[in-house]
Amino acid sequence: MRSFAELLSVFEKHFNRRHFPEHTPTLYDPARYMLQLGGKRVRPVAVLMGNELFGALSDEALVAATAVELFHNFTLIHDDIMDKAPLRRGMETVHTRYGESTALLAGDVMLVQSYNCLNTLSPERVPPVIALFSRTAAEVCEGQQLDMDFEKRESVTLEEYEHMIALKTAVLLGASLQIGAIIGGASEHNQQLLYGFGKNLGIAFQVQDDYLDAFGDPENFGKQVGGDILVNKKTFLTIQALEQAGPSARKELLQLMKTNPEDKVEKVLQIYRDCGIDAHTRLLKDKYFRQALAQLDAIAVLSKRKAPLAELAEFLINRGH
Amino acid sequence: MRSFAELLSVFEKHFNRRHFPEHTPTLYDPARYMLQLGGKRVRPVAVLMGNELFGALSDEALVAATAVELFHNFTLIHDDIMDKAPLRRGMETVHTRYGESTALLAGDVMLVQSYNCLNTLSPERVPPVIALFSRTAAEVCEGQQLDMDFEKRESVTLEEYEHMIALKTAVLLGASLQIGAIIGGASEHNQQLLYGFGKNLGIAFQVQDDYLDAFGDPENFGKQVGGDILVNKKTFLTIQALEQAGPSARKELLQLMKTNPEDKVEKVLQIYRDCGIDAHTRLLKDKYFRQALAQLDAIAVLSKRKAPLAELAEFLINRGH
Repeated sequence: MRSFAELLSVFEKHFNRRHFPEHTPTLYDPARYMLQLGGKRVRPVAVLMGNELFGALSDEALVAATAVELFHNFTLIHDDIMDKAPLRRGMETVHTRYGESTALLAGDVMLVQSYNCLNTLSPERVPPVIALFSRTAAEVCEGQQLDMDFEKRESVTLEEYEHMIALKTAVLLGASLQIGAIIGGASEHNQQLLYGFGKNLGIAFQVQDDYLDAFGDPENFGKQVGGDILVNKKTFLTIQALEQAGPSARKELLQLMKTNPEDKVEKVLQIYRDCGIDAHTRLLKDKYFRQALAQLDAIAVLSKRKAPLAELAEFLINRGH
Repeated sequence: MRSFAELLSVFEKHFNRRHFPEHTPTLYDPARYMLQLGGKRVRPVAVLMGNELFGALSDEALVAATAVELFHNFTLIHDDIMDKAPLRRGMETVHTRYGESTALLAGDVMLVQSYNCLNTLSPERVPPVIALFSRTAAEVCEGQQLDMDFEKRESVTLEEYEHMIALKTAVLLGASLQIGAIIGGASEHNQQLLYGFGKNLGIAFQVQDDYLDAFGDPENFGKQVGGDILVNKKTFLTIQALEQAGPSARKELLQLMKTNPEDKVEKVLQIYRDCGIDAHTRLLKDKYFRQALAQLDAIAVLSKRKAPLAELAEFLINRGH
């Protein structure tokens, strides 16, 4: 089994080609523009790793990995429209560059293309893979909707938050690994364990991402630190702070969220620090990380085959950026 | 083979059920709202008719018909966002009622659900049906993009217009019939003929729809007469008028499109009448209608089996509303 870096290079070689026809450039140029913005390609490489955990890498894994990456980019195009985000990876978002209507359609056609890709797998694999993929795709939409719902609510429970991030970001990592496992010929039980590994890892990753949005090093993080605080995003940090803070700090926090003063980020961070949100976040992240590793451990293949996945988990979770 | 009306009632009975889970109502209520707005259900019934042309109605045709109707509703939700349409069938559009972001997501999840539906067909039918469906879905997106592109252009050729309406509205009728034919066990050749019948009929229907938008009886048409003229939509009528009109009428038409005076609709209609656009439109519609019927004729099944499809064609094309 090869490392993430090795499989990333295998994937990039395969992915770096024409995904859309030459005609109708007013629709397909925006789609191509999105793809060339790049990305970490964690999900498609997870498909390849899921395959290699159980057998030799199949060309079908590359096809499925392509579908997963197209799907992920579809969600990014539409999320950016919903978030009215001007930039992604330091470049204009699709809707900023081409207008909202075209971005909407370019996202739609990218979703169609991801199904079209999966449909070229061996005929006997098409139904199980599309069933898992469609369930996951619907969950990702549900997660995005819940995230938007939560922004309008004053309070969200920790349980609701965990459910939302599981749907919005974690299930796709689980499904990517499982699709690879299906192609690798894994048993249903091993497939489920690998899915669980990916899903728990995805939640741990998102908890950390929320943490870094508030406490990350601005030089390494790549996004505006405090961005979530500015838009009153209901992250684990806010939810915990509202639960842990004493009455006066709680009142101050709610007031800051309502009035949006200039020094909002600074003041909210101080409340977070006073409530020990650091430690709480580490605990939650560790809980999910341990659950992920336990499921990886339980998969019935030789431990050394699992090493690249364990390394990937460490890398995703201990990144400072 | 049963008539459109009989199969419509079969379809409505099947379709009138829960398509989305009870949970996450903020996402799925908007999707359900869209479906209960109703519609003519021409495309799903076409799936059933395509099946019955070649064999006894299969439950699989009802599943595929459901997928086609979900897909059509997905396109309507997203088109209404792009067109900023406040109303559909006299009711608020999804984005007017629930906001653009939620409408965008509700459309996405409806597209996912349409694939999920097709994926429950017999395993051997899933790949060919999803291949045809995905090709068609991409074409519908291309057609919508071209339609938007044309609104910004001063001139569009008749050929470009015909290509655009073929993609935007006609291919889905062709594909619906062909999916039914696949389920009915038709030969590849018969499938293609039926697809051609649907596609040509769809173009004839759209030409007529453009005509009725300008010249229809306001009481019967159900939409605002002259709506296309108001927004400078490049329909067959505008394109022909710009080609046929003498220099001064042409100049007046372009001026009207630029300045949007209060009596624009009235004056544009007069130019259309002066150029004999009526007759031209009838000619174009008849051309496609005849092509449709020729393909229906060539299908190798007993003529009496084709009667309901011929009746549907007459009904769609000779409607005055």
